[in-house]
Amino acid sequence: MFQFMTATRIIFGEGALNNSLSSLNQFGYSVLLVTGRDSVRAEPMISYFKQQNMRYQQVAVHGEPLIAMVEEMAAMGRKFRPDMVVAVGGGSVLDAGKALAALIPNQGSVYDYVEVVGRNVPLQAKPIPFIAVPTTAGTGSEVSKNAVLRSAQENVKVSLRSPDMLPDLAIIDPTLTYGMEPVMSGCCGMDAFTHLMESYVCGEPSPLTDMVCEEGLRRLSGAILAACEDDDPRARSDMSFAALLGGMALANAKLGAAHGLASSLGGRLNAPHGLITAQLAPFVMQENVLAAREAGRADVLNRYRQLACILTGRMNAEIIDGILWTKRTLKRLNLPPVSDYGLCDIMYDEVAEDALLSNAIKGNPLPLNKDRLLSILEQMCDCNKQKDLAALGERNDTAEQ
Amino acid sequence: MFQFMTATRIIFGEGALNNSLSSLNQFGYSVLLVTGRDSVRAEPMISYFKQQNMRYQQVAVHGEPLIAMVEEMAAMGRKFRPDMVVAVGGGSVLDAGKALAALIPNQGSVYDYVEVVGRNVPLQAKPIPFIAVPTTAGTGSEVSKNAVLRSAQENVKVSLRSPDMLPDLAIIDPTLTYGMEPVMSGCCGMDAFTHLMESYVCGEPSPLTDMVCEEGLRRLSGAILAACEDDDPRARSDMSFAALLGGMALANAKLGAAHGLASSLGGRLNAPHGLITAQLAPFVMQENVLAAREAGRADVLNRYRQLACILTGRMNAEIIDGILWTKRTLKRLNLPPVSDYGLCDIMYDEVAEDALLSNAIKGNPLPLNKDRLLSILEQMCDCNKQKDLAALGERNDTAEQ
Repeated sequence: MFQFMTATRIIFGEGALNNSLSSLNQFGYSVLLVTGRDSVRAEPMISYFKQQNMRYQQVAVHGEPLIAMVEEMAAMGRKFRPDMVVAVGGGSVLDAGKALAALIPNQGSVYDYVEVVGRNVPLQAKPIPFIAVPTTAGTGSEVSKNAVLRSAQENVKVSLRSPDMLPDLAIIDPTLTYGMEPVMSGCCGMDAFTHLMESYVCGEPSPLTDMVCEEGLRRLSGAILAACEDDDPRARSDMSFAALLGGMALANAKLGAAHGLASSLGGRLNAPHGLITAQLAPFVMQENVLAAREAGRADVLNRYRQLACILTGRMNAEIIDGILWTKRTLKRLNLPPVSDYGLCDIMYDEVAEDALLSNAIKGNPLPLNKDRLLSILEQMCDCNKQKDLAALGERNDTAEQ
Repeated sequence: MFQFMTATRIIFGEGALNNSLSSLNQFGYSVLLVTGRDSVRAEPMISYFKQQNMRYQQVAVHGEPLIAMVEEMAAMGRKFRPDMVVAVGGGSVLDAGKALAALIPNQGSVYDYVEVVGRNVPLQAKPIPFIAVPTTAGTGSEVSKNAVLRSAQENVKVSLRSPDMLPDLAIIDPTLTYGMEPVMSGCCGMDAFTHLMESYVCGEPSPLTDMVCEEGLRRLSGAILAACEDDDPRARSDMSFAALLGGMALANAKLGAAHGLASSLGGRLNAPHGLITAQLAPFVMQENVLAAREAGRADVLNRYRQLACILTGRMNAEIIDGILWTKRTLKRLNLPPVSDYGLCDIMYDEVAEDALLSNAIKGNPLPLNKDRLLSILEQMCDCNKQKDLAALGERNDTAEQ
């Protein structure tokens, strides 16, 4: 048995933002608008609010949404009493907006509702309508039911989560991602990759998430380089579509060790989430394959083989080809190593311990023990060190196996 | 730009009905239960209502939902004031339930809201929660936003339609389709086929409906015979899944001439909708291909080629193979000819005229004139006549082209 939920309404395409502004009015006429530091991409929306004489208040999220910041914004929102929350931005902005839509009609503190550091109480009142307009292609937050918030005190990232938090409307306009610089595009794109990849190989896939992952991985593998390096419009559109599918997948399947380790690392390092999961991805794939071989799990190995076929576009690809595709793509996209953000080996033990307690790791295709998690962290860092020593060619990459 | 909407929540799998009864209580504790003549498949639900001391009232839909019948049920429903409408049955039952959920909170008559014979006014109040539990694999009504009703006066079928009419919860339990007799299974299964096929080749596909159609057609082509002839559980499950995908597709893409002609024929004949669209399908495919060749529409021809590859599972299939697959499958399933339900050639002219005015035909991959529609009707009936004369072998079938 499986369950599938997504945003009530999805509008996708070049020009979608300008062409669907009037659909906001089905939700009312007053808006709490959440943007990033730079709100230039929200300008068509702001013009529309002014032109329609709509009441709106704008709040800007700088960096990742801290619980304290969201608390303050929610208090302000409760006074303003908007009909809806509209978020225009990357994952942090969307998650902040989604959390605000949930918190505004509910009393109490964020800590009442979040998992891990909070009391994890279900929301009493339904969230007010939430409209998500992503300006990056990666997070998938436009169709997911959780908001990731950072607790500055405990140095962890936690989720506020409810099926009622699925956005009422997702407006995905790939033109909003045009012009984003290559490395940031790569971090976002590989974030979508890790959603799709982990959902595809996870322990609880469904026929619907399989369909979504296969299409998403196919689009992504064909588009990620042209989108990030050349800002090619068609590739940008494919990446926005793949990111949307990644969000659908993660909202309806499980994830795995890359997200388990990333949730643990993410609280400790100030690195982009997409970068962490991406740098972990090939080593998680490798370790899962080794563990599956040891455990004689043909089903898991078969999934990794299918994954390799999709990523390479070759029907006869081997498991290793999928791992190589991931390593080569990471190298080509020139993503910075996680060690640039302060990861050092004395952290490994704690990171692995915390990861074992994470929600995401439960979805891993098979259980990984602490040693395997440590091995993933070590390999990721060794690989980064090697990169520092010498630019690795394709041959070296193969030899790594 | 495209838009995508589906049921808020989908639960799918063997045993889904028994395992998700408690999820009804998120909507309240009083239920208007809509079933078919035989409500045996709704019994687990009725037991649950009793056990939970829930208020419920049961209404049974016999045959297709007539407007007058739905009016009467809505009047009764307004007095009963249920928290939700739950429909357990085939397409007619689901459509009646969906219409009731929309009509109960709205004043006025069905004729205020339906298209073609009515005033087509948008619903003022939002429908009350609607839960769809299909007992057939075909209609897709569990994830579509319209209810087809029959006007006995005008002898036409019309739709009550609104994005707000998408079910709040679709519970798809393939075990409910077990044991259905082969011909009826075939009619339902080919209904799903026509939804997927017409959505796939239609003039306004989207990347999401393409994904859904490709997966649906792949599953359906591999499962339809084993489901209908052998009642094979795995094939039944694939058919329920394909029907779900067909519903998603038709709710988000356009359809085509088979549905245009069927809406016109459906008002005149008392034949199952799935049977009519299915018997039309191969001739609509043929006529569209001829028209596309004449018009030099390589895009349309290419779609039909892709369709053939999916249906046959062969990468190098030709357009004709898709048409042949459809004809052979119809023959193998032994569906009765439409002429059994009173179709005769003096009707053709009027049927074609009405079809040209239908909503569905606007989605056809390219415009078909009245002569082409007449040719489709004639070929469908000639084919049926030939069947009466002699059982046609594969060779004759090929020669027909």
